Amino acid sequence: MDEIRIGVVTASDRASAGIYDDISGKAIMETMEAYLQNPLCFEYRCIPDEQESIERALKELAYEKGCDLIVTTGGTGPAPRDVTPEATEAVCQKMMPGFGELMRQVSLQYVPTAILSRQTAGICHKSLIINLPGKPKSIRECLDAVFPAVPYCIDLIGGRYMVCDETVIRAFRPKSK
Amino acid sequence: MDEIRIGVVTASDRASAGIYDDISGKAIMETMEAYLQNPLCFEYRCIPDEQESIERALKELAYEKGCDLIVTTGGTGPAPRDVTPEATEAVCQKMMPGFGELMRQVSLQYVPTAILSRQTAGICHKSLIINLPGKPKSIRECLDAVFPAVPYCIDLIGGRYMVCDETVIRAFRPKSK
Amino acid sequence: MDEIRIGVVTASDRASAGIYDDISGKAIMETMEAYLQNPLCFEYRCIPDEQESIERALKELAYEKGCDLIVTTGGTGPAPRDVTPEATEAVCQKMMPGFGELMRQVSLQYVPTAILSRQTAGICHKSLIINLPGKPKSIRECLDAVFPAVPYCIDLIGGRYMVCDETVIRAFRPKSK
Repeated sequence: MDEIRIGVVTASDRASAGIYDDISGKAIMETMEAYLQNPLCFEYRCIPDEQESIERALKELAYEKGCDLIVTTGGTGPAPRDVTPEATEAVCQKMMPGFGELMRQVSLQYVPTAILSRQTAGICHKSLIINLPGKPKSIRECLDAVFPAVPYCIDLIGGRYMVCDETVIRAFRPKSK
Repeated sequence: MDEIRIGVVTASDRASAGIYDDISGKAIMETMEAYLQNPLCFEYRCIPDEQESIERALKELAYEKGCDLIVTTGGTGPAPRDVTPEATEAVCQKMMPGFGELMRQVSLQYVPTAILSRQTAGICHKSLIINLPGKPKSIRECLDAVFPAVPYCIDLIGGRYMVCDETVIRAFRPKSK
Repeated sequence: MDEIRIGVVTASDRASAGIYDDISGKAIMETMEAYLQNPLCFEYRCIPDEQESIERALKELAYEKGCDLIVTTGGTGPAPRDVTPEATEAVCQKMMPGFGELMRQVSLQYVPTAILSRQTAGICHKSLIINLPGKPKSIRECLDAVFPAVPYCIDLIGGRYMVCDETVIRAFRPKSK
């Protein structure tokens, strides 16, 4: 089985300043360990909510570290310092609006404020970047909704072959193109 | 309770020329009066479907009048003179795609032509701008769907504290960030 | 009854090279014949997945051939050569996000990879352009979902009057604006 490289980017002024623990970044890594049977190599970055720093981290993970998947958490709301979707759009060659639509729809089942999340997804070089909200609980809900499409997406962009633990999550790969 | 400043912008060639009454703008103001217990100060503009005029009105309401919320009606369709979403996007620093998605989804329960509405939302300075369709009936349907998220959104962008009449609509504010 | 001009653009490296038959383009034309009672004039183009060629084809069909509706198939995925949505956005004066949202939602009932489709719609000159996925089965599912709004959309942009076979699909036209 291929070793999968996964970038995890926490955008948070407070977590990056050590004011509190980055539970969200950890939640993403634990979820990936639960989903995937491949050996995993994480590239973890915890940075302030600055568009330039987020762009730099995303590009480093995509172009230098060769991540197949980059998952961000935080910075997707309407507040002035929420700039993760803008950073994502700035570095991506292709946007994938279906991810944000589905994640908002799923979160709407729990809270009406789900529409305030501006999370999106896109392709940067050979990496799929997915924005997740900042709250650990929402992270798992969102990933459960979109992850079944992730391994096939990564096949299509020339990434490594993901093998899911089917007792946890089922990847879907259409039989023929 | 804070006085809430609400901008209401009707984009309509015919209403602005006095050819017919602007029922839609009035419907928005009545809905706001029903939703909110705060004293309200309305800034009302009825203007033709010109992108430049709409942008000017939105900027005046956001930067000079200090509106917490600006609601537009009209100009969201596919016709050549429907330019409200373009004007909104031009003046906003952040777009909020979840609003348009949810409003179209709700309207789809009534009419299949709901997908023709290009309505969106975004943040301009410290104002939340929401586009609504032109028809009074759709206005209430759309506002009922998205308004529960509006007070918290306005908290996050530094606006005044909205208090809803909970017998009419329930605002949702997450317990902790 | 007006003769309706419909552009059909298949974006496919393999179909355009004659490696396989373009079943998708044919499926679109058959669906249009089934939906519409008007006489139809098809303008059919089968071209490689090159953004520039797709843009040129879309513009020719909109500006020179005067198509009321242009339907594309293929090139909506995340792969490097999938560029149909980018070409569509480049030639359109207005984007119609509701089409892509609804088509993805409908396809999600069948496959979780529906979120990988980046299909959109927009107005170019006096033509409505709709992107469809490449697979014949998905084409009909998507068209069945959005077509009820198409005739009214084309009325609004000044196109010819479509008459549907109501035993197959029902167009919806609101009573009054």
